[in-house]
Amino acid sequence: MLVDALQFVKPARERFEEWHAAGIAGVHATVAIWEDSTETMREVGRWQRLLAENADLLREGRSADDIRAAGSDGRTAVVLGFQNSSPFEDDLDLVGAFHQAGVRIAQLTYNTQNSAGAGCWEGDDAGLSRTYGINLIREMNRVGMLIDVSHCNERTSLEALEASERPVAITHANPRGFVGENVELAFRNKSDTVLKKAAESGGVVGLSMYPRIAPSGVDCTVAQFCDMIAYTVDLIGVEHVGLGSDYYAGQGDEELHWWRQGRWSRKPMVPISGPVEFPEWFAAGRGYATVLEHLRKRGFSESEVELISGGNWLRMFGAGFVADSRN
Amino acid sequence: MLVDALQFVKPARERFEEWHAAGIAGVHATVAIWEDSTETMREVGRWQRLLAENADLLREGRSADDIRAAGSDGRTAVVLGFQNSSPFEDDLDLVGAFHQAGVRIAQLTYNTQNSAGAGCWEGDDAGLSRTYGINLIREMNRVGMLIDVSHCNERTSLEALEASERPVAITHANPRGFVGENVELAFRNKSDTVLKKAAESGGVVGLSMYPRIAPSGVDCTVAQFCDMIAYTVDLIGVEHVGLGSDYYAGQGDEELHWWRQGRWSRKPMVPISGPVEFPEWFAAGRGYATVLEHLRKRGFSESEVELISGGNWLRMFGAGFVADSRN
Repeated sequence: MLVDALQFVKPARERFEEWHAAGIAGVHATVAIWEDSTETMREVGRWQRLLAENADLLREGRSADDIRAAGSDGRTAVVLGFQNSSPFEDDLDLVGAFHQAGVRIAQLTYNTQNSAGAGCWEGDDAGLSRTYGINLIREMNRVGMLIDVSHCNERTSLEALEASERPVAITHANPRGFVGENVELAFRNKSDTVLKKAAESGGVVGLSMYPRIAPSGVDCTVAQFCDMIAYTVDLIGVEHVGLGSDYYAGQGDEELHWWRQGRWSRKPMVPISGPVEFPEWFAAGRGYATVLEHLRKRGFSESEVELISGGNWLRMFGAGFVADSRN
Repeated sequence: MLVDALQFVKPARERFEEWHAAGIAGVHATVAIWEDSTETMREVGRWQRLLAENADLLREGRSADDIRAAGSDGRTAVVLGFQNSSPFEDDLDLVGAFHQAGVRIAQLTYNTQNSAGAGCWEGDDAGLSRTYGINLIREMNRVGMLIDVSHCNERTSLEALEASERPVAITHANPRGFVGENVELAFRNKSDTVLKKAAESGGVVGLSMYPRIAPSGVDCTVAQFCDMIAYTVDLIGVEHVGLGSDYYAGQGDEELHWWRQGRWSRKPMVPISGPVEFPEWFAAGRGYATVLEHLRKRGFSESEVELISGGNWLRMFGAGFVADSRN
């Protein structure tokens, strides 16, 4: 059962058809990046409308069982999530409120510093804040909102892993130890230390074809991508590796500027070189079968391929999307 | 002409009468501490209504001339300001919008970390963010919104002083070098380094009778307070020292909890020992004349007393509340 732990496509039937063609049972879709609470609720509402209008292809993804059900009847379950904690507006009660509204995963930070922690554009001095950051993690643990540190800096990632009593996810990032420093956004990738601790927490890392963080960028071959999977499996175990493509499509300049600078800058603070080209074999988000086939050829067993393709995410989502039973 | 660079009283005619009795020509009043943009606009509107209803005692304080005019006709000019950058919601355009609405001073942070920097409860690892923090300072410089680092941690204060091209204010804090570590919130006070750099920037520090940061706490005598003034004058020069009482009155438990924990904590993260008692000689915000008289007795000249009592703030507000002429 195929799960993509992060896509940021502009919601449109064309994309949903691509998911169907690729056989994706579950996809984690982003509804907030800099948005505040109200703006995010509008996005949640938009997805509700789209789910209804495209019920032949989609269903709501509030649980691992929703994804399994979607996989069984050939649809895609959409798990809503944030790439930033901005929608919570420093209000702990909004964590539970957004969980009620169907949101299941949230990054503590996008690329910059916020009241909870610091993103990967900020260097490593700032970490999880001792005030709200700690409390936010406790509240996400309590209600069953998965903590995602994909874009957090090293220090925030480590301190979140230390603070969280439940498994922490890295929905979309690659091992810096494998990819190296010669990619455009090398600092977005994760150190071996963070990956190991995420695995120790019970977490999963979703490996990405996003050219700015993938080995050899847009020239990343299926073989290289599978080498990266093998590296990560060797490092943290096959139970902790999954897919998280970071695939996006359909957005124009306006959206790209929003992602890079929100309203907090008047100009991009990292280069915007236009929408990226994904590797050709992944075009239109269709590269999953190729990857899985290649893994089998490399000697991964069927059960290992099943874990990597979606089984690990299903296990983590199943346990993580529900309230902490100790509370 | 007497200027108090920070009071956080609950707006009520009783307070305005106290200001009148104390002869305060200008007071910087707080309209936001954790509030977002909309909540803050409601506070701004409330003050507009109160200014109209109490026009015999108050007038709007959008400029140093407004304060001078208030001083001349025995009223108090109210300068609106933020103790946090939360009302800007990481939107640079809101800086100019709030300036238009009459807001003239904003702290980058209250006590905790946010997207711009870090407050004094966070330790000193996090500083001014390289992304929004830098841009916020540029924008405040541009539109004529005074940057205040009173509650920022050491690092954020220093980095803001480095980044700002215009003078930076410390509206309400005391010199840690004089007060020492034996007060409840010693970490709220400012190092000699920060005070010196603020003065070098052209800024002013407002010294406070707030017992949690004042020498000997609630037992602080007028003599001790004036010793602290003398220490600060010796350290950074008489042109950079003013008053900023941090006086508050009229709030109940609900407001105190809001100040201490906003919505980001379910319990206070520093002890809340109830509303503080200010030193008896300052009761009801009436201690200014006593302080100024004491300064004269100590040998401060009339012109020095005039600078400390309000002249320095008038100079800084006069230059700082207007758009940067270079833009």
